[in-house]
Amino acid sequence: MDEPVTEMSTAECWEFLRRQELGRLAFRLVDEVHLVPVNYAVDHDPVTDRRTILFRTAEGSKLLGVVMHGDVALEADELVDEHAASVVVRGRAWLLDEHEAHRADTLPLRPWVPTPRYGVVEIDPVEVTGRRFALDRPWRHMLPG
Amino acid sequence: MDEPVTEMSTAECWEFLRRQELGRLAFRLVDEVHLVPVNYAVDHDPVTDRRTILFRTAEGSKLLGVVMHGDVALEADELVDEHAASVVVRGRAWLLDEHEAHRADTLPLRPWVPTPRYGVVEIDPVEVTGRRFALDRPWRHMLPG
Repeated sequence: MDEPVTEMSTAECWEFLRRQELGRLAFRLVDEVHLVPVNYAVDHDPVTDRRTILFRTAEGSKLLGVVMHGDVALEADELVDEHAASVVVRGRAWLLDEHEAHRADTLPLRPWVPTPRYGVVEIDPVEVTGRRFALDRPWRHMLPG
Repeated sequence: MDEPVTEMSTAECWEFLRRQELGRLAFRLVDEVHLVPVNYAVDHDPVTDRRTILFRTAEGSKLLGVVMHGDVALEADELVDEHAASVVVRGRAWLLDEHEAHRADTLPLRPWVPTPRYGVVEIDPVEVTGRRFALDRPWRHMLPG
């Protein structure tokens, strides 16, 4: 039988993040915790082998939160039948300047919706962790249709 | 053409939350923002018409964060073809005492994995918001397989 929870290696975590496009960003705004969905991409510098997370945003609160408290967490997950996986990147976030922001142009990182998006935010990872879950969902029949 | 982003009513948000089972919980632990996947359920008191979020947990950091800083956010979302939706509940969280914890027993809220789960946490909503997105994903062909 599968182990119910297994830790993913750092390499597995990055490969998982690379295959996803929808993440959720948690950040602080003044004394509140906020959580928003973001379309992100993984940027990889082949020279330094450094990997970071990039996303676009124009939302005032989101940007303000990132600028005021750079400590953020981004999560991506997948649920297929009885198997789930979740990867969390904790790190520092900041707005890229104009010179750096062009890095987003070569990534699959266009805004999902055609509302104005002004900035590119980068998350420099402090910690990347991932877990796979072999699910036991005995209550599935109880879920509303 | 669909509006790219539409706000969901509070009733739509709760109906959406009721149909999902996987959420992501953001909370503070000391000065850090943390983000973890949780299996949650909506509890509805028909007498008061009050709706709250319940989830089970045994994770030390999760519980500690909730106890130390009750301000949390929980998000659930759905992505189907070119339509996405995301609902966020911001509120105060606390551990239910033994007398109250039994409320979880009648909900589709069993742990996904058979690791010990000791507590039932309740989130009392301060703010519930939801948005639907009509997606434009022109870079879809750029995504890795």
